[in-house]
Amino acid sequence: MSIARSPLAPEGFPDLPAIAGVTPRVARARYKTWDRCDLTFVELAPGTAVAGVLTKSRCPSPEVEWCRDALPLGTARALVVNAGNSNAFTGNRGRAAVEAIAARVAGHLDCQPSDVFVSSTGVIGVPLPIDKAEAGLDAAFAAPECSWQDAAATIMTTDTFEKAAVANVVVGGKIISLVGIIKGSGMIAPDMATMLGFIFTDAAVDPAFLQAALSDANVRSFSCITVDGDTSTSDTILAFATGQAGNAPIVDGNSPGADAFRSALADLCTRLAHLVVRDGEGASKFITIDVEGAESDESAHRIALSIANSPLVKTAIAGEDANWGRVVMAVGKAGEPAERDRLSIRFGETQVAVNGLAVEGYDEAPVAAHLKGSDVDIGVDLGLGSGRATVWTCDLTHGYIAINADYRS
Amino acid sequence: MSIARSPLAPEGFPDLPAIAGVTPRVARARYKTWDRCDLTFVELAPGTAVAGVLTKSRCPSPEVEWCRDALPLGTARALVVNAGNSNAFTGNRGRAAVEAIAARVAGHLDCQPSDVFVSSTGVIGVPLPIDKAEAGLDAAFAAPECSWQDAAATIMTTDTFEKAAVANVVVGGKIISLVGIIKGSGMIAPDMATMLGFIFTDAAVDPAFLQAALSDANVRSFSCITVDGDTSTSDTILAFATGQAGNAPIVDGNSPGADAFRSALADLCTRLAHLVVRDGEGASKFITIDVEGAESDESAHRIALSIANSPLVKTAIAGEDANWGRVVMAVGKAGEPAERDRLSIRFGETQVAVNGLAVEGYDEAPVAAHLKGSDVDIGVDLGLGSGRATVWTCDLTHGYIAINADYRS
Repeated sequence: MSIARSPLAPEGFPDLPAIAGVTPRVARARYKTWDRCDLTFVELAPGTAVAGVLTKSRCPSPEVEWCRDALPLGTARALVVNAGNSNAFTGNRGRAAVEAIAARVAGHLDCQPSDVFVSSTGVIGVPLPIDKAEAGLDAAFAAPECSWQDAAATIMTTDTFEKAAVANVVVGGKIISLVGIIKGSGMIAPDMATMLGFIFTDAAVDPAFLQAALSDANVRSFSCITVDGDTSTSDTILAFATGQAGNAPIVDGNSPGADAFRSALADLCTRLAHLVVRDGEGASKFITIDVEGAESDESAHRIALSIANSPLVKTAIAGEDANWGRVVMAVGKAGEPAERDRLSIRFGETQVAVNGLAVEGYDEAPVAAHLKGSDVDIGVDLGLGSGRATVWTCDLTHGYIAINADYRS
Repeated sequence: MSIARSPLAPEGFPDLPAIAGVTPRVARARYKTWDRCDLTFVELAPGTAVAGVLTKSRCPSPEVEWCRDALPLGTARALVVNAGNSNAFTGNRGRAAVEAIAARVAGHLDCQPSDVFVSSTGVIGVPLPIDKAEAGLDAAFAAPECSWQDAAATIMTTDTFEKAAVANVVVGGKIISLVGIIKGSGMIAPDMATMLGFIFTDAAVDPAFLQAALSDANVRSFSCITVDGDTSTSDTILAFATGQAGNAPIVDGNSPGADAFRSALADLCTRLAHLVVRDGEGASKFITIDVEGAESDESAHRIALSIANSPLVKTAIAGEDANWGRVVMAVGKAGEPAERDRLSIRFGETQVAVNGLAVEGYDEAPVAAHLKGSDVDIGVDLGLGSGRATVWTCDLTHGYIAINADYRS
């Protein structure tokens, strides 16, 4: 089967600058019987700092375990991404494949294996074939540098468009750039809605600060999106900073440009996260859920996720139905502090329920018009405190069922 | 739209005995523009004990709050069930409707309003019209006693079949009967997948013991089913015991017949719960998920629910796809203790993964045959401890999307 480009996809691929110290190459490892590049090899200059956030799944892939062990060392020389095989749930053989990849790259670059970061996405339960990985790597070593669009395309599985974003920021008088590529949320093979994202910057940043900034950004971006509530065994976000921009290194929050860098990274992560939702399986609406008035930000986040993951809310939006009763239900089931008689709900700019009561005779025309658009906003005010959160999701359509049930793996 | 009878429905309605001291009647309150009975009035003999379990939603209906206040008193004289309007999220006006119903019945039966239990199911956010409720009650007071099937039909909203079950048990030398009727999981109007269940027995049972037995049964039955993970604002199970069977009252676990009564009630609850799953929106498969080897029963329960609520697992079963990778994902995301390399998974009787590895060359024929049937069993062994749990759910199909998104409310 082929899946049409998501109706929520942006018009085109953005213009992205080269990042000094970052050299992407792609090759055909032929992990599946397809004729496309499926191995991405990104060489990173010596001195590159690294940070990452990884899936909390209790059944992670060996790649996730490898990255978790390597991240505390803070340095990176290469990234390898395999598409078409997630290598998850493959026991010692899966681990051996990751070690073989790291060893081959370490030999090529004359670096430590722990400087090589590896991610894989695709079918679960099939050990990544080491011979194909090694042949693919050798081809990549010899390949010319590729474009960001080629790299973004090569990490895709059943994504319907290449996803990338860029941010520029001045740090200590130097212009630095951040480029991110990401894949996720398209799936027909028997694997997860895997999300893999990679961010590259030429900034000089201490790994500890990079990690803090990335963790902080993650909480407000990737951790705030959901397509179907199903957490992958392979979710990985890695950020690499080559330090070639010439800025005085950012070592902590007091360094010149630290705040600017942190916000640029957070902004980049949010835009990358939105792209994943816009390629959500079967998505026809991009939904923003704003919760305020909760007892804490954490409580607001859990309530927002309860709404975003509710099949009844998601199908109502797919049906362009201002079904605020389902929002009430999702607030009620979240298990967080809520009082029915203080709860207010809006669709777009129109309040439909205030203080636990439907707004009688509210104007349905702007609500209907808002729901017909491709971007839908739902606002919930709990009326209890000052906690707030925003979560992004997509609707639940026949397309999701078609992708995940109609076609056998 | 009309929804076809669920393919998982039992062949017919069971033969149910009358329960001494229980007199059901139905009438047309016309809560919606339909020509069908939508108000159920069940008169209960003086001395009837009552117990109940109610939704944990933080935004419950006024009916749920009314029942929660009345249950500690332990006595009941009547049950009123309104179909077509859930009366949830309606503020003081909704509360006034419940009070008016209780007052009218109390006047008719010369009892306390707190002896009148009220449940409503249907559209949310519209106060139950008091005039229609009162006229409906007056019609019900004058109506002849009806059959259990009529009562089971009258509490339905978009259920596709009437749901009831019976159990008989000997308590202290007397044969006692338990009859349950239940509705839930069919929905096209803008309301929740509301579950309402009512159990009637002629046993003499102390309210405290009845409550303990019902709470216990609930944990292993209604709390172990899920259609879409969306918890209603109105979920209610009430059990009424008229004491007319002539048994020596069961006052605690040491009373004669206490164990027999408790298991009969638990068995009845499980069968009623299964009927709700079998009428799950769009369901084409009845799925049993057995988790064992967890660190505790509670942990096993949460893992089983994580599997049962996973859209990717549910769509895989709909597609008759032995996609055990999605089961691994759902175990991994549950946040409970799990070790990838001890995890084993079976479909039906066939092990497909053992100790964190796919069983190479397992016989796919029996797995495929099992998945083609209407009843699918998934077994997960975590290999950690002795905790176990069973959860029942249904698959996620185009029918679910059609019911909840294609038709506007």
